[in-house]
Amino acid sequence: MDTLNVAIYGASGYTGAELIRLLTLHPAVRITALSAESNAGRPMADVFPQFSALDLPMLQTLKELDLDPIDVLFCALPHGTTQTALKAALEAKPSLKVVDLSADFRLADPKDYAAWYGHKHLAPELQSEAVYGLVEVHRAAIAKARLTGNPGCYTTTVLLALVPLVAAQAIDVERIVIDAKSGMTGAGRAAKMGMLFSEVSEGFHAYSVGKHRHTAELDQELSIAAGRPVTPTFTPHLVPMNRGIYATIYADGDPMRLHTILADTYAEEPFVTVLPFGEVPQSRHVRGSNFTRIGVVPDRRAGKTIVISTLDNLVKGASGQAVQNMNVMCALPETTGLQQLALFP
Amino acid sequence: MDTLNVAIYGASGYTGAELIRLLTLHPAVRITALSAESNAGRPMADVFPQFSALDLPMLQTLKELDLDPIDVLFCALPHGTTQTALKAALEAKPSLKVVDLSADFRLADPKDYAAWYGHKHLAPELQSEAVYGLVEVHRAAIAKARLTGNPGCYTTTVLLALVPLVAAQAIDVERIVIDAKSGMTGAGRAAKMGMLFSEVSEGFHAYSVGKHRHTAELDQELSIAAGRPVTPTFTPHLVPMNRGIYATIYADGDPMRLHTILADTYAEEPFVTVLPFGEVPQSRHVRGSNFTRIGVVPDRRAGKTIVISTLDNLVKGASGQAVQNMNVMCALPETTGLQQLALFP
Amino acid sequence: MDTLNVAIYGASGYTGAELIRLLTLHPAVRITALSAESNAGRPMADVFPQFSALDLPMLQTLKELDLDPIDVLFCALPHGTTQTALKAALEAKPSLKVVDLSADFRLADPKDYAAWYGHKHLAPELQSEAVYGLVEVHRAAIAKARLTGNPGCYTTTVLLALVPLVAAQAIDVERIVIDAKSGMTGAGRAAKMGMLFSEVSEGFHAYSVGKHRHTAELDQELSIAAGRPVTPTFTPHLVPMNRGIYATIYADGDPMRLHTILADTYAEEPFVTVLPFGEVPQSRHVRGSNFTRIGVVPDRRAGKTIVISTLDNLVKGASGQAVQNMNVMCALPETTGLQQLALFP
Amino acid sequence: MDTLNVAIYGASGYTGAELIRLLTLHPAVRITALSAESNAGRPMADVFPQFSALDLPMLQTLKELDLDPIDVLFCALPHGTTQTALKAALEAKPSLKVVDLSADFRLADPKDYAAWYGHKHLAPELQSEAVYGLVEVHRAAIAKARLTGNPGCYTTTVLLALVPLVAAQAIDVERIVIDAKSGMTGAGRAAKMGMLFSEVSEGFHAYSVGKHRHTAELDQELSIAAGRPVTPTFTPHLVPMNRGIYATIYADGDPMRLHTILADTYAEEPFVTVLPFGEVPQSRHVRGSNFTRIGVVPDRRAGKTIVISTLDNLVKGASGQAVQNMNVMCALPETTGLQQLALFP
Repeated sequence: MDTLNVAIYGASGYTGAELIRLLTLHPAVRITALSAESNAGRPMADVFPQFSALDLPMLQTLKELDLDPIDVLFCALPHGTTQTALKAALEAKPSLKVVDLSADFRLADPKDYAAWYGHKHLAPELQSEAVYGLVEVHRAAIAKARLTGNPGCYTTTVLLALVPLVAAQAIDVERIVIDAKSGMTGAGRAAKMGMLFSEVSEGFHAYSVGKHRHTAELDQELSIAAGRPVTPTFTPHLVPMNRGIYATIYADGDPMRLHTILADTYAEEPFVTVLPFGEVPQSRHVRGSNFTRIGVVPDRRAGKTIVISTLDNLVKGASGQAVQNMNVMCALPETTGLQQLALFP
Repeated sequence: MDTLNVAIYGASGYTGAELIRLLTLHPAVRITALSAESNAGRPMADVFPQFSALDLPMLQTLKELDLDPIDVLFCALPHGTTQTALKAALEAKPSLKVVDLSADFRLADPKDYAAWYGHKHLAPELQSEAVYGLVEVHRAAIAKARLTGNPGCYTTTVLLALVPLVAAQAIDVERIVIDAKSGMTGAGRAAKMGMLFSEVSEGFHAYSVGKHRHTAELDQELSIAAGRPVTPTFTPHLVPMNRGIYATIYADGDPMRLHTILADTYAEEPFVTVLPFGEVPQSRHVRGSNFTRIGVVPDRRAGKTIVISTLDNLVKGASGQAVQNMNVMCALPETTGLQQLALFP
Repeated sequence: MDTLNVAIYGASGYTGAELIRLLTLHPAVRITALSAESNAGRPMADVFPQFSALDLPMLQTLKELDLDPIDVLFCALPHGTTQTALKAALEAKPSLKVVDLSADFRLADPKDYAAWYGHKHLAPELQSEAVYGLVEVHRAAIAKARLTGNPGCYTTTVLLALVPLVAAQAIDVERIVIDAKSGMTGAGRAAKMGMLFSEVSEGFHAYSVGKHRHTAELDQELSIAAGRPVTPTFTPHLVPMNRGIYATIYADGDPMRLHTILADTYAEEPFVTVLPFGEVPQSRHVRGSNFTRIGVVPDRRAGKTIVISTLDNLVKGASGQAVQNMNVMCALPETTGLQQLALFP
Repeated sequence: MDTLNVAIYGASGYTGAELIRLLTLHPAVRITALSAESNAGRPMADVFPQFSALDLPMLQTLKELDLDPIDVLFCALPHGTTQTALKAALEAKPSLKVVDLSADFRLADPKDYAAWYGHKHLAPELQSEAVYGLVEVHRAAIAKARLTGNPGCYTTTVLLALVPLVAAQAIDVERIVIDAKSGMTGAGRAAKMGMLFSEVSEGFHAYSVGKHRHTAELDQELSIAAGRPVTPTFTPHLVPMNRGIYATIYADGDPMRLHTILADTYAEEPFVTVLPFGEVPQSRHVRGSNFTRIGVVPDRRAGKTIVISTLDNLVKGASGQAVQNMNVMCALPETTGLQQLALFP
């Protein structure tokens, strides 16, 4: 394969570091440029010392970063700045392939975007061009896309479990309850009191109950799958662990049928494992890998099913899925650079 | 107050140690005898070194332990052995007050017991005599009881939130979903591979989905409150933390009304705090204390409510509630010995 | 006993919260006033929800706080502001008893202070008046003091182990190596990237090697005990746990003799437990309590000893010791309000 | 390269699982056979579910396992059984290359073995044939070896830091203090009460003070390097984390000189990173990787140095180093299959 020159916007956050961890072992990629505003001028190893043995490009400001040689751009900037940064990038070099890890290009409807994010989208043409980068669902469209909006970590976890069931009309879409749990890296690397070790270890709590922004993505994709509006109940929680999303989904539908649909859907998918009927997945068994594990368990009451889905929020829920998107967009074998197994224990 | 002579059967487990932590500071109690079969003949400080500065009785076998001077017996034996041990104890000394922390005296119906535990109850007369020791619900009966079955940790967490709502017919009892999470001490101190640090840290998983034994207690008490059979969906999970139960409960019912009912019910209760409408509790804020904290949050869809309840499984979910039961049974002020505040951080 | 009116300067940090946890159960104390600049005007339960069931005074600015009714002032302000705040307080009300939890009044020599903290002390008269508040060592002086400088957490852990040995000339003071480990609460509640859960969990590291400021306190107190300058090697590390200091101290000296000295020194001390010869303490067995546990273990080479000391940095290493100082300064029984046992597990 | 057929004895422990994680991505290896006595007849995914998507051989008993097609044998059996198992294996197939991860073939002197392990070695000829598998120190001998004894995790961490310093006579070998800390996976997967989550989380403690068996390996290798007997002080501790060894080593020697020696020694080594002078490594930056990171920091007193070394006990401290040994023994490029980067956060 030819070598792709890759740049990362926003390399000093957790998803940026995770991209570097994965791309360093990707045989078709050269990491050519890295941006990080406040750390510009410093080596990547200053912000993530585990990379000190690698030969990586120096961190630059967005403005300094030369897109000329770049084939693929991963954008791990915060929500908001992303819109203008990518608009500028694609105007400067229209032939770029871009995978955006922010939330800016996930919602197709400008009204949805404005409603959930509180302001008008600043790059509406790109928004309508962008493809929702959930590979297992939108693979064909992604293969032709110039810009993909990499799905949120909660959303990926839930959609991989629910889209096939909703599409098959196998569950009551009025009755979906999603109780989701996330590790702490989902909150990013910004210094916030609420994320200090002593504030979040040795305890558990829900947050953003009834109003988490990933809800908008859930609504969009489930509604597409269902062919009508779906607005599930969704409650996120924080778990004192670093990595992992764990979604316990309560659905009205026949357990055996749901299991069959999921097992059939994912029989050939390299990154989704449907467990034998009745078995329960654990988040630790996907840690550090691009895998999603899904279990289907019957409730004691007939016609009720618990569907459980888990993945690593920094891999399949962010940077791993981003690499998977790149592979599809660049016609590389989809699993290239993504074969690392879970680190357990 | 007079001093009560207290014995603990099964002092070498976590709930036994927690009883000692609490009772040592209880002004009306003397810890007079402690049993622990495999550690008999050793001081308590050998099994829990934090007690080495205390003057505690030596550990004895059940057989050696003299009940003559004992006024109150706490039984923290494993399920099963409890039935015969307490039968013998109450035959030997009928005037004993007994608080049992096992599951043996929680289910009133012998058929329920046999169905969930796989064998006939060995002390059926005591089973029918025993009162379900959920103080906030059964206080009057407990005050007159000789034997209380201290509720399970999950059950206490859920029932304190749901009993008032079900009793007021404020929620649809056909549609209750309980997603519950527990810290690791709930699994006890027995050496099991699945409870090793490296097996349970840095990850999250559900277990006993659709079949956890606490379900039987939930059914019993919710059905009493509702006046008809209630069989909620109940899914327990393990959180990598030591203490805490966190129940996220999905109910069809009006959020404001549910909040009002709970706030009114618990306005005068010393150990149940109902948070302001919309606020979310955290398990760490009850750690080490006898408090339960309950939050009521509206879903984004009208008529749907998320009720969240949290407590420390070893205190209000076990040994603290046991002391509370003793206080009620012995006509002591209910909060005696239970004023320690949460240890946070 | 008469009731003491107590104020806390800087109540919204971890040591402030810990003071409230302890003082609420102290029978001779009323918490009369609480300061917290950025949270002034809010209830304490807003910053530490575990206190929501208590009836505490509203948070005020330092300026608003009326010292007139106050008998005892605990100062938990950051290093630096403390000097001017306490100078003003003692000028406004010279009869106050003050326990300062910052580092500002621990070093007796103004030159030492300037050398380690980079500026001249702003209240030098108070500095020379202040007594070093290590009760087990300076009890008599503390009983007569108006102002005590509560020792640092590392320092308390190490000095309780070493002062008797150094004073008895039982170890080679040229050869002391102190390898110390701390839980995360020692870093306080300020939002720092380096203290985020995902930065400090699942790993271990040393910090401030060869230059931690507690070294100055160690030098001061060990030199007093030795009667000549002592400058031990001291290396602090961070442990992914909330509470606890654990000091592994390497000393040249006879193990049995060292054990005898320590056991004799602390035979009557309520808060220091010397373990049987050869036994090793664990930090979790002091969690939440005011105890220090010390073990003495022989090295395999004759004449070399490992002395291990552990305490809870927020209790005996900060707020518990502060209450102990208050008890001594106010002629109350020293253990009043400090009987809570360790919370383990 | 030709494909090597590899077998693993004792595949169901943590080091067995780690070998599979690494070898699955090794381009010159086929995993041909796996043994696990109590789990024989079951798939590997039953004991480590993260492997469920792989096509691995079924677990067999040692007796069933056919060595005929095997080129390389990794032995991850417990200490003791290893001796007889490997003796039998090498008699059955003398051309095997064997890397043993137990402690059985690390000590060259039969008397040392008997003294530390309490019984005579059962395969003394193999013991004298075996090469101590610390690649950076014994590379040439390993390249010619048939059987290597893979070093202990503590030992590897310490020796990589100390062997060059001792060999250069740059430190006082009479004055070495090693304060070492380990994550929990070092204790293996056997169900022991002392390793339960609730026993080891949220706390810290030393163990085996003055008598840990890895001391024998330290003595042996340091004495070889020094050319005379060296018996350092060595104290191991347990950290509430899964992976990582962290050794804080106190040495009398000039800091700059020690740094120069280490930096020179490891300039070309692919798996050992010596940090810039004065910088402190963190265990989390090697998690899941085969790297060792070493820092050299001056004490405040002249002529005293703190040398800090850290690695992942399951990778460079066990299975990664075992693969590195295999690569050297089989004349493969030494880094083959070992390029995975640290998983941080």
